[in-house]
Amino acid sequence: MSARNAFYAQSGGVTAVINATACGVIETARKHKDKIRNVYAGRNGIIGALVEDMIDTNKESAKTIAALRHTPGGAFGSARYKLKSLEENKAEYERLIEVFKAHDIGYFFYNGGNDSMDTAHKVSLISKRMGFPVTCLGVPKTVDNDLPITDNCPGFGSVAKYVAVSTQEAALDVLSMAKTSTKVFVLEVMGRHAGWIAAAGGLAGKEPGDAPHIILFPEIPFNQRAFLKRVKECVTKYDYCVIVVSEGAAYKNGKFLAEAGTRDAFGHAQLGGVAPVVANMVREKLGYKYHYAVADYLQRSARHIASATDVKQAYAVGEAAVKMALAGKTAVMPVIKRISDKPYRWKIESAPLSRIANKEKMLPRRYITKDGFGITAAARRYLEPLIRGEDYPPYINGLPKYVTLKNAPVKPRLKTKFVV
Amino acid sequence: MSARNAFYAQSGGVTAVINATACGVIETARKHKDKIRNVYAGRNGIIGALVEDMIDTNKESAKTIAALRHTPGGAFGSARYKLKSLEENKAEYERLIEVFKAHDIGYFFYNGGNDSMDTAHKVSLISKRMGFPVTCLGVPKTVDNDLPITDNCPGFGSVAKYVAVSTQEAALDVLSMAKTSTKVFVLEVMGRHAGWIAAAGGLAGKEPGDAPHIILFPEIPFNQRAFLKRVKECVTKYDYCVIVVSEGAAYKNGKFLAEAGTRDAFGHAQLGGVAPVVANMVREKLGYKYHYAVADYLQRSARHIASATDVKQAYAVGEAAVKMALAGKTAVMPVIKRISDKPYRWKIESAPLSRIANKEKMLPRRYITKDGFGITAAARRYLEPLIRGEDYPPYINGLPKYVTLKNAPVKPRLKTKFVV
Repeated sequence: MSARNAFYAQSGGVTAVINATACGVIETARKHKDKIRNVYAGRNGIIGALVEDMIDTNKESAKTIAALRHTPGGAFGSARYKLKSLEENKAEYERLIEVFKAHDIGYFFYNGGNDSMDTAHKVSLISKRMGFPVTCLGVPKTVDNDLPITDNCPGFGSVAKYVAVSTQEAALDVLSMAKTSTKVFVLEVMGRHAGWIAAAGGLAGKEPGDAPHIILFPEIPFNQRAFLKRVKECVTKYDYCVIVVSEGAAYKNGKFLAEAGTRDAFGHAQLGGVAPVVANMVREKLGYKYHYAVADYLQRSARHIASATDVKQAYAVGEAAVKMALAGKTAVMPVIKRISDKPYRWKIESAPLSRIANKEKMLPRRYITKDGFGITAAARRYLEPLIRGEDYPPYINGLPKYVTLKNAPVKPRLKTKFVV
Repeated sequence: MSARNAFYAQSGGVTAVINATACGVIETARKHKDKIRNVYAGRNGIIGALVEDMIDTNKESAKTIAALRHTPGGAFGSARYKLKSLEENKAEYERLIEVFKAHDIGYFFYNGGNDSMDTAHKVSLISKRMGFPVTCLGVPKTVDNDLPITDNCPGFGSVAKYVAVSTQEAALDVLSMAKTSTKVFVLEVMGRHAGWIAAAGGLAGKEPGDAPHIILFPEIPFNQRAFLKRVKECVTKYDYCVIVVSEGAAYKNGKFLAEAGTRDAFGHAQLGGVAPVVANMVREKLGYKYHYAVADYLQRSARHIASATDVKQAYAVGEAAVKMALAGKTAVMPVIKRISDKPYRWKIESAPLSRIANKEKMLPRRYITKDGFGITAAARRYLEPLIRGEDYPPYINGLPKYVTLKNAPVKPRLKTKFVV
């Protein structure tokens, strides 16, 4: 069989290590030029394929591709763009296959979360049905850590490390000042549905009394009375209280705390974060001085404090996806299988996309303490290896030396335009 | 002259490197046991002296003291506590001297910002007047970088590095997603009066079009029309817009943007950050999807990404303060004198506290571009060396290994209690 092209796309929210996966895909493909002629990357994810705006990665030097390993963000552009079902929008799938055909693309690597695994799965089915079978591989990526089967998701370890380190550092700051200044500090972290990231904040403390004193998980309905009681206890006992709150923290009725009815001067409902809501609650009910931080994109782009484990795994899933494709596997995703906790050992296996698509893995209840405010020993055992090791980027003049690609376009071959 | 004791206190907001200064003071004092018997540290800053709750640093091992160099926060506790004028509260000064006398304290090292330099200066004058002359040294510390005479302030370089790196990383994230998601990203940084920290965000970009596209300084009155025009231009031209805003950004009439009249569901005025105000403005007037981050304490406690230059200088001012004291100098502060930009060279000199106390050094207008939204080449020349170099803390199991001191109390010698 002669060599064919591959298409690689980044999907959904980017991470500190998604480019490490791209690096794994491209470097591994380059070792098999007899099978993969070129890796085309979607400019802005799958949209790049639909509008036939692909990037010629053969135009990038080996050195540049290697530098992707330490560069955060999505080097080719990502997209929040979910293909509809075949019934709703057949034209999109047909267009995709049409573009793949025109560019002799025999391999599709889709680097994303649940939605993307669904898309990759569908493309695999439809390409066969349309008489142009494409080898479709999902490649896992999500800071939310919510993909099933895989023990963890590339992208999560680094955001977990960022949140744990930041909690630890801010706690030292707050404790130093608690006598005369801020008593309560609130850190808002990502995770709208699953509390994995918030749980990682718990790694900052080991002894009773250590920060964070309270974690607010999306999985545990918010109980204001119990929360305020605990804040007061902490301030009384330890002089300060550090709270890590997930953006997805919600009341029993499912209403997000962040939607607490805050209005601006004109009476417009204000889209705010959850941290100011929690902080204001503490001030109003308990009168403590507070500060809050909203980590937002800083947490998922913080390549400067990436977890070495995460970087290794992000690369490994990219590499494995190409190897699986070349071995004839399709409609699968490389998954991380944990062999042991101590010492931490893992390997890559494959799992069918049909078992992964559209499923969410929530933080198990046994990872949350009985009172709902902390993490258990089991959670620590799971989380600790994932943040282990530092993998610093190179620096120049005090700043990380991140790479920018040429991102040269592949010449379009179709006459038709497609509008997304 | 026989050996006497020294008193060291941390004052005001702590930083990622104030403990490196403490390390410099204590290690240097330990080399001169013939002159300085012990360094007592104030528990919670100057309050520790007033209530006679001091920490015996001789109880800490050399290894522990060395570890202060890489530990953020204030290891002995700091305080926001400004001694009033002598007329207003003579009792406080008398008490201080009484405690110094009871513990044979001949040296006072006060590690803080403008207010603390004023206090150190006053204590020097009063101790003489009271017939118990104490050698008083100010030791500079402030993330705000607003002390006069010294070229820069220990603490600033690390927060500057954090802000520059975070801006650079978040910008890569936003740019990757701009096609289908967030177009405007706002990062709120510290600096209520001076825009030094906001200016540091400007280091993230070098070429036209690079993020940050807009910096909002406290020194430049906020002009909503010009601001929104610029945001629109950036999104049109570059697909995205990254904004670094100082918490001190204000309207021409002096009103902070953060006091924009936001009210909660009950109609109470809400103390919010400036980032959500700016972000909501963009959404309301231009309709762009936005995200915002509030760095808050994370920025000044981020020892994991401290500037090596800053750590070195923080240690050096502590060391120099002790040497100056032993050389008979009093009522002075070690200042950093820049000898050259390229290569960056600096040395420590001394300056009288009377010239430093209660004075603020603002960001010069020539460091801000004509349009008020960016930094000039002169600003870059000044700022770049200050963030240079990485000085990573040691890690264990994925987290920085920060030190906790014993903080054993010095036995009180006075019968009287003092209430602050």
